[in-house]
Amino acid sequence: MEFWFTEKQTERFGITMKIKRTLHSEKTAFQQLDMVETEEFGNMLLLDGMVMTTEKDEFVYHEMVTHVPLFTHPNPKHVLVVGGGDGGAIREVIKHPSVEKATLVDIDGKVIEYSKKYLPTIACALEDARVDVQVDDGFMHIAKSENEYDVIMVDSTEPVGPAAKLFERGFYEGISKALKEDGIFVAQTDNPWFHQDLITNVYKDVQEIFPITRLYTCNIPTYPSGMWTFTIGSKKHDPLKVEATRFHEIDTKYYTKDIHNAAFVLPKFVQDLLK
Amino acid sequence: MEFWFTEKQTERFGITMKIKRTLHSEKTAFQQLDMVETEEFGNMLLLDGMVMTTEKDEFVYHEMVTHVPLFTHPNPKHVLVVGGGDGGAIREVIKHPSVEKATLVDIDGKVIEYSKKYLPTIACALEDARVDVQVDDGFMHIAKSENEYDVIMVDSTEPVGPAAKLFERGFYEGISKALKEDGIFVAQTDNPWFHQDLITNVYKDVQEIFPITRLYTCNIPTYPSGMWTFTIGSKKHDPLKVEATRFHEIDTKYYTKDIHNAAFVLPKFVQDLLK
Repeated sequence: MEFWFTEKQTERFGITMKIKRTLHSEKTAFQQLDMVETEEFGNMLLLDGMVMTTEKDEFVYHEMVTHVPLFTHPNPKHVLVVGGGDGGAIREVIKHPSVEKATLVDIDGKVIEYSKKYLPTIACALEDARVDVQVDDGFMHIAKSENEYDVIMVDSTEPVGPAAKLFERGFYEGISKALKEDGIFVAQTDNPWFHQDLITNVYKDVQEIFPITRLYTCNIPTYPSGMWTFTIGSKKHDPLKVEATRFHEIDTKYYTKDIHNAAFVLPKFVQDLLK
Repeated sequence: MEFWFTEKQTERFGITMKIKRTLHSEKTAFQQLDMVETEEFGNMLLLDGMVMTTEKDEFVYHEMVTHVPLFTHPNPKHVLVVGGGDGGAIREVIKHPSVEKATLVDIDGKVIEYSKKYLPTIACALEDARVDVQVDDGFMHIAKSENEYDVIMVDSTEPVGPAAKLFERGFYEGISKALKEDGIFVAQTDNPWFHQDLITNVYKDVQEIFPITRLYTCNIPTYPSGMWTFTIGSKKHDPLKVEATRFHEIDTKYYTKDIHNAAFVLPKFVQDLLK
């Protein structure tokens, strides 16, 4: 007997993978949480039936959401991750020696708890001395922060359920206020094959608030279409004008200095979404 | 009642899509051919149960297999496509005004026949005056060609069934002989998540035959992992040193001059496959 998990990534398309066993299933206060062991991708975290991260391909998302803004900022000291309870982004953040404090604010403590248990190579940095983990509403945390962070990363689920308000213009205005005067923020903004409107709308909103707005992409096999986008809003530093000397040696599997720059080169149909 | 088609892209992972109806199914002399109408991707060609091309995302593969080598060559006149019976590569080839003759050699005439019928926007150039369509064995065609082509594109199925010998070193030696003294060839070489060995082995074989060997990638949602690779072997012209004046205006949805260069910037784990 074979068990397969299928995520319908749209009403008409999905991915399917062979499952060894379910490790944990729970309806938390915020969402359905499932942790399963897959044959192809190792352990995998699902929230509301959507793949969040897998042991095999997690490095792409976590490196790309982190190192692009952190190398763009000349001296990031205080970094905030909104969401990201699996700890993968935090693990990458603390690879930067300039970082003095990395704050994680995830609304769902269960995500943190079960990531520590079943995704130990991803959650491994959550106990680091520089890391401050808060189980709290990221939207509210942003609302009450002012001039505090060098870099803010929005590592959210899709714009349904608890994360819906993290894709609204008001949230980006709050982020701008929470950032220092040369701060940078990045948000995951889904894919350009099935969610064109989201990319176009977020880009427009961010562009109205931040002087420098950029979109970049990477390849994640377990995410819809395999092409994922991130939107950057920056008050001062341009991710396309990072001085070569700024890049230092870092242990990665996807990100490189050259990938940093190439990731902003967009296929024509993606460029056209930003006009 | 809903109909879904699932392609197991590995033994443990696949994609699934909602089907409106089957347009044609036939066991040809070489392979199982199915043409189906999908809800997400329009009409879709399957060979031996594997997605070959869909109306929605075909432009990526066909532009990237074509324009990268054709802009690298300073004056491509005679171009050969091995496989590619759907006609998509040929459609892109004849966008280059320097091309005097584009020869297509596909072993399976049924692929050509049913692509013309059900994929008319892809097969639209097969009747062009500059196009010579031959139903023949590509391996044999290469074996008997000498100093004939400026650019050869291997637009094959996976290395199982009729295309297996198109991934062997002897075939690349034949291609070298079939090319003119400054000729270039490109082959699709699968994805770096599930087929690392194929990429490593082809790259090594090509490197032993051609002075310039390069790997580049693009994003194709219906292909395994969403990241696809192409391997280039070139006798003289380096795809990374194309003069800016060589690029001319061309009607594309994915390829641009900047994508041409960025496509060769590889994630670290892909770079590592080529060492």
